[in-house]
Order: sequence, then C-alpha cells, then structure tokens
Amino acid sequence: MNDLNLDRLFNPKSIAMIGASANPSKWGFIILLNILKGDYSGKIYPVNPKEDSILGQKCYPCVADVPEAVDLVIITTPAKVVPPLIDECGQKGIPFGIVVTSDFSETGPEGAALERDVVSRAAKYGIRLVGPNSMGIFSSQTKLHAKMPPIMPLQGNISMFSQSGNLGVQMLGWGAEEGVGFEKFVSSGNEGDLSCLDYIRYFGQDKATDVIIGYLEGIDPGMELFPVAQEVSRKKPIIVFKGGRTDAGGRAAATHTGAMAGQSKIFKSVFRQAGMLEVKTSQALLDCARAFANCPLPKGNRIGIITRGGGWGVITVDACEENGLKIPQLPDKIIRKLDKHLPKYWSRGNPIDLVATIAHDPYLDCLEVLAEWEGVDAVIALGAGRRTPQYPYSKDVKGPQPLLDAIKMASEYFDQRRKKPDWMLEGIGRLVKRTGKPIIVVAIGPETLHRSNLYEFQVVSYPTPERAVRVLWQMCKYRRFLDSQQ
Amino acid sequence: MNDLNLDRLFNPKSIAMIGASANPSKWGFIILLNILKGDYSGKIYPVNPKEDSILGQKCYPCVADVPEAVDLVIITTPAKVVPPLIDECGQKGIPFGIVVTSDFSETGPEGAALERDVVSRAAKYGIRLVGPNSMGIFSSQTKLHAKMPPIMPLQGNISMFSQSGNLGVQMLGWGAEEGVGFEKFVSSGNEGDLSCLDYIRYFGQDKATDVIIGYLEGIDPGMELFPVAQEVSRKKPIIVFKGGRTDAGGRAAATHTGAMAGQSKIFKSVFRQAGMLEVKTSQALLDCARAFANCPLPKGNRIGIITRGGGWGVITVDACEENGLKIPQLPDKIIRKLDKHLPKYWSRGNPIDLVATIAHDPYLDCLEVLAEWEGVDAVIALGAGRRTPQYPYSKDVKGPQPLLDAIKMASEYFDQRRKKPDWMLEGIGRLVKRTGKPIIVVAIGPETLHRSNLYEFQVVSYPTPERAVRVLWQMCKYRRFLDSQQ
Repeated sequence: MNDLNLDRLFNPKSIAMIGASANPSKWGFIILLNILKGDYSGKIYPVNPKEDSILGQKCYPCVADVPEAVDLVIITTPAKVVPPLIDECGQKGIPFGIVVTSDFSETGPEGAALERDVVSRAAKYGIRLVGPNSMGIFSSQTKLHAKMPPIMPLQGNISMFSQSGNLGVQMLGWGAEEGVGFEKFVSSGNEGDLSCLDYIRYFGQDKATDVIIGYLEGIDPGMELFPVAQEVSRKKPIIVFKGGRTDAGGRAAATHTGAMAGQSKIFKSVFRQAGMLEVKTSQALLDCARAFANCPLPKGNRIGIITRGGGWGVITVDACEENGLKIPQLPDKIIRKLDKHLPKYWSRGNPIDLVATIAHDPYLDCLEVLAEWEGVDAVIALGAGRRTPQYPYSKDVKGPQPLLDAIKMASEYFDQRRKKPDWMLEGIGRLVKRTGKPIIVVAIGPETLHRSNLYEFQVVSYPTPERAVRVLWQMCKYRRFLDSQQ
Repeated sequence: MNDLNLDRLFNPKSIAMIGASANPSKWGFIILLNILKGDYSGKIYPVNPKEDSILGQKCYPCVADVPEAVDLVIITTPAKVVPPLIDECGQKGIPFGIVVTSDFSETGPEGAALERDVVSRAAKYGIRLVGPNSMGIFSSQTKLHAKMPPIMPLQGNISMFSQSGNLGVQMLGWGAEEGVGFEKFVSSGNEGDLSCLDYIRYFGQDKATDVIIGYLEGIDPGMELFPVAQEVSRKKPIIVFKGGRTDAGGRAAATHTGAMAGQSKIFKSVFRQAGMLEVKTSQALLDCARAFANCPLPKGNRIGIITRGGGWGVITVDACEENGLKIPQLPDKIIRKLDKHLPKYWSRGNPIDLVATIAHDPYLDCLEVLAEWEGVDAVIALGAGRRTPQYPYSKDVKGPQPLLDAIKMASEYFDQRRKKPDWMLEGIGRLVKRTGKPIIVVAIGPETLHRSNLYEFQVVSYPTPERAVRVLWQMCKYRRFLDSQQ
C-alpha cells in the first residue's frame, strides 16, 4: 500500500480562500466565519479582488499576491471560473484544494465535463483536490472548521469520511450532543480526485486516528477497496454505513452520487473479508464509534449481565442470543462470592438480578465479582451509574404541612445525591482499566447523561440494552477478524 | 368475550392503604407520598394501628374502621400478614386490591404456597387482585399514582401492562421525557389472580384507551390469548414486547416470572394471527406507541420521502425497502408540479431532494404536492421542522471587530429564528389532518425537541429515519390485519 500524505490538507499552516465574500448569505462568508470562530491555529488569506478586507482579515486580489506559501486553497466561487483558478493555484505551488463549489458532475453531462477539466488541470500541477461539491473538512489538531454548517464537533480519536456532506456533518453535531468526539472529518463530495479510498488509507496511517468511520455510496468494491481496507483493518477498525444497499436505495444513490446500484452482495463480502464493520442504521454508526474509541476490545463473546430488574435482564439476554453472544452460567465459586452481597433468595444466575433494595446497594460489589471472573469477556451493567434523577414532583403541591415537609425532604435528598460525585461510575471506570474488559453501562436518560458518563468517568453508556448489545456484537466480530489475521 | 370491568380498580373513589407507614424508607410511606403528591382525586385512608396520622392524613387502626365504602385496597405489609388482611378486606366488601408486598411465588415454593393462600381467600370474597409483587398502577383520569418510583407520566391515550415492574415504570418515565403520554398503567407482578390477559381485555373495552402496549414474559399463548387479543386487535392496536424470545432469554424469564421457555415460534404465530404487533427492542415499543397514538393509519405501504440531503434520502429508501415498504416513482404530473418549486437540475425522483438552498425554502410547498398525491399512503419528512439550533460558537471569541460583529449578528439571527412560531411544523400538522395520511418527521435532536413537536404541533417525529421506517412498517402491518378482518 502506497503512503498518501494528507497532513498538509488536514493540518495546513496557511490557507487561501478564493471566493471569500463580505456578503453574509454566501458560503464564502460563512465558511470564513466558521474558520475564524473555530480559532484555527494557522494563517488564513481571503482572496477577492473586490474587497479590501472581510471579517477583519486583509483581502488579496488574487492568490499570487498572498505573501507566503499556501498549504491549502478553499474555493467557493461559481463553477465556471474554477478551472482558471486552479491554474493560478498551481502556479502558486499550492499542494491541496477543497472545491466547495457545486454545479459539477452532480448536475449532468455539462457539469461532468467541467469537473474533468478542473481535475485534469489540478493533476497537471500535482494539486490533490477534495470535492468538488464538498461541504468541507474539520481537523481537531489545527482547530480547522473549514465547513459549511455552524457545528462545533467535540475533539476525539475518531476520523470520518462521508460521501454525503449533510449526513456527515450532522453526525459531527449529533456526536457533540452525545459525547462522541472526532479527530478529522472530510465531506468527500463528487470525488473528482481524492476518494474515500484515499481517506481510508490516510486515516489508517494517521497516528491521531484510532477509529475510522464512514458513509459510503459509490466505490469500486473489488480491486481497490479490498486490499487497502484489509491492511488498515489490521491496525484499526473501519466502521462503514453503506447507502444504496437495496435496489431502490441503489437507484436513489445513483441520482445522488452516481454510485452503481445492485452490488450489495459484493460489498457485503468485501466488507467481511477486509474486516470492515458494516452497520445498518445511522444510530449504530455513532454508537459503535463511541465504544470502539473508548473501550478495550473483548477477547471473546461471553457476556456477563448485571441488572436491577428481572425484565431488563431478560430482554438483554434475548438481544445477546439473537446476535450470537453467549451468556455463560455462573460456576459455584462465583455464586458463593455473590452470596455474600445478595439476599438469600437471589436467582443465582447470569444475569445477576440485584433484587431491588433501597438501603444497601450491592451493585458495585457484585459487578466487581462478575467482571473479574475469567468466564466472561465483557459486561453489560444495566441501570448503573447516576440513578438519581431530579425529583419529578413540583414543590408547590397543596396539602397538609406534613405532606409538604415530606416533599421538601425528598427533594433535598434527591438534590443532595445528585450533587455527590458518582462513586459507582468512578468504580466502573477503574474496573475497566483493571480487568481490561469492556463494561458497557445501560441507563435510560438524555444525551447529556451519556456525554457526562463518558467525559467525567470514561464510561461508555447507552439508553437501551439493545444498543449496547449491537455494539458488543460488532466488537466481537472485529476481535475475530484480528485473531484470524495472526 | 366476557366483559371484565376494572373501572373501580383504575379509577377508585376511595382507597385504603394497609401498611401505610410514617417511616420514609418504607414503601408504605413512599407510595402514599406519591399518591398524595399526584393529587389523586378520590379519598385515601391510611391504615396502621401504630400511628395517629401519616403525612397529614388521619390513620385508621384497621380497615373495618374506615368510615366509608372502599373501592381499592393497597397492601404493603410484610408477606406473612397478608392472608388475614385479605379476610378483613373481604369482610369490608372491598372489590379490588393491589398487593405490592413481595416474598411470594417469586422466592420459591414456600412463597408460592403463601400466594395461593392469598389468592384463594380473595376469591372467596370476590376480591380481584393485582400482584402480588406489583410495583403498582397509574391512572390519568383520577390522577392516581399508586406506584413505587417517583415518576410522573404524561397523560395520553396509551394504556400499558407490564410483567416487569421496573421495565414498565421506566417506560412511563422515558415516555415523559419523549412526550409519550399514558392513560392507564399496571405492573402485573406475579399475576396470582388478574393477568395481562385480563388487562388486555379491559383496555380493549376502555373508551379512554386508543392504543395498548405491553411487556410480556409468561402467558399461555394458545387457548386464552388468541381469541381475546384478536377481538381487541380489531378495535385498537396491541403492541407487545416479548421477553424470553430466545432459549437463554427464556431461561432468564423462568427465574424472573416463572414464564415457560421455548415457545417463541408459537408466540410469533399467535401474535401474527391475532393482529398483535411484536416489537423487538425497548425503543421500538415506545416509538410505535407514539405514532399509533398520534397519527392516522396509512392505507397502504407506498411511501413518499422528502429530504434536504441526498444521503439521508438514500438510507431512508434502504430502510423502507428492507422493511417491505414501497417507494413509488413520481409520475409526470407530480414532477411538473414540483418543477415550479425546485431548481432546474433537481433529480425528479422519490425521494424528493430539495438541493439545499439558503434563501428560499420550498420544503412545505413540495411536501404538500407529495402528501396530496394519491400515489403515496404516507410521507417521511427528513429534516423538517425546527431547523435552527442554538448558535454553537461561544460569544467570547477573540478577534477583530468585524468578526465579533458577524458572530453577534449570526447569534441574533439564530436566536430570532428560534423564537418564531414554527410555520413548517404548523403546516405539517394541518397537512396530516387534511390528507388523512401520516407524515412522520425525522430530525436529529434531543428528547425535548420531539416532545415539543408532538405537544405544540401534533407532529410525530423521531431522531433517525430508521426509527420512523420501523414504525411505519408496523402501521402497515396493522392496516393489513384490519383489512383482512373485514
């Protein structure tokens, strides 16, 4: 596999922006604003012959006038003027460009011809291009927010490529809500030059990237994808969400990115053999990214379950079994250890049902016994963590004084518990490190809960057991791939 | 099907509470507190020989001393004293009881014998019992929060039974976050007397209930369930989440509720023939409940899709196709109508891709054309509604004055748009009424967004297209069942 160094694309020291505009309704204004607000660490040179300055930045009449070498040019002009601008960039010696401009191959044969012209001119000068019709890129190291929508991704160790700009940037925004952070992002647009294959190859070499995720519609699944993806998969997971899996979806993809329909069986087989992990829903893409980026891999598919309620345990077992995960029986030595913490009549099985008590909470004691047992490779911890919600009754209830006193007391009790540092999540975080096993928490709650679980306690959590199981299933699959490659 | 009138159980005029306690760590205190806080519309009589009053309520030494007729008794005493208390309730002529007390059949043969004793004494007096080992009930009409956890459900037209108390009440709480409201709820406990079959039958007759949902583990799937469920399904949908679908799950269910394992094929067939809708995840249970309770049913499985981004359209088509929903091609007359609203190069297909523009937003115009077309039975509206998030960049960015001015301007613009009443959601709400077709909105966003979409605009929405598709698939299935019964 040849190296492909895109460092200066994602972490440029200086950017020229052709098409920068003083008009707030133009992308050339909005992207410049996003770059400046994002506190980009390099230098940015707006290029526009009609303006002296935009957003407080000195403006240059043409790219030749920019007073230093430029690593990256971002183009937002109308399509027709792009080809001669590429010549100017080539003469300036710029190695990378992002063509945000649309009206190229996505609009028909005329646009396709224009796109070929742009790409062949770029090739002449050795310029590598993102797009055209790209929504831009994001890079956490240089704090480069060179993209259309005003979304502020969290920083993390996941890098993403997307053949849909909309879907990609919305994943960044959704990740910010849920606590899933990104290292690099690229909206690959029409892929006139650089393709997602190039991004996979580069992210594979990139030391700051631990997990690669991507939205794919069209790519040659055979000759090219297989060897590149297989080599990268040996080093880090590639999680893909494939649009156009069905005949109708393939037709829709063809009108969107020109992807070829009807190859879903080929893709499935290439994904499997190359160790790529295919997810089938948008939610699963982000769910998997979260766990792969923040959890150790399980060594096998034997799952321990701990629960506060029988029903949740039952449905978690069903989900595991339906996804090929195993629920081993507890041996006597583990049952004896758990006997010390649980009431006499506990069910002595896996899932371990804590049989709700109010006073003493044996959760962490039992979880420790379970996670340390060599018979399980991973644990699903149902109802762990921040149990104490806001007291849900309004404090202005009417009634006799003793009732009002009791409500006040209960509210204060809840408030106090919510303020305490969460010893249980702290304990789970420590236990993951000590055992080297993933412990996935399940707790009904809003995005903010799961974000703080991850950010404050390094604990991966989901609101439903089925989502946790789906993620563990993918982790086991990836582990099997790694084992098969040794 | 015999009538079974549980009105006085769910909407009692007076309740006696045996085991009411002044000790805040006892369930007899917590449930009484929840009932009082919930602003229950009837009378509540705590019974406890050791107290004069609890929470400001006069206390009675025994149930015989309660000065009026009692519709419902709630028992939270230790298990051993329950049998003689049942006799006292029988002599008082109380028709319904909820035995919250645990330590019955769920703990072994001794508890099972005690449970049989309780049930047979109740039968002698004609008392119908919920439980034992029930977490209680909720009823919106009398504002009766007779349940353990301090969760405040929203009022709605969905009634739920649950063979897991934990799972059931957490669905109520989850519903409150997401905007899914309930009419009645019962945690059926060990089902020593009344079973989920009885609740299905009663909810089927209940005028305030439009949709029935339930969590099931153990029930005789044959003789009893089939005729009852089929008759009810003809009137209103029954959505079930079955725990113990797999062998391992069945074993876990056996230790939890004593359900019989290994009958999953029988259940599947009974569910299908009786028109019951089986969901496979906890999230799907609530998702389906939301749409069935707030949307018209589609007349068939032809889906129109409208999107702001090609990628989202593609993955929605894939999800539809994988679930047996059809994506019809647009005929010329519809394309001509849409041509008026869209740029020249739009793709002229279903999904209708709006080809993002900033200035003019043709969304509602195109949606109207699509929804009114007789060729579709339902519409998925991707990215509709409250598009304007909070402006995500902090206002304390440093930089030259024009940059600060631009950020201030953008923030104000975003804030202003967010304050405006949402004409698009209003339009969608009207369009659903006018066309009689479900229009399901998909918009990434937190629970609060989807709650306000429903409560302020009567629009059903989900954060991912796959969840919307799963719901529409169930609606189509139910429609086919109804059609087959005519």
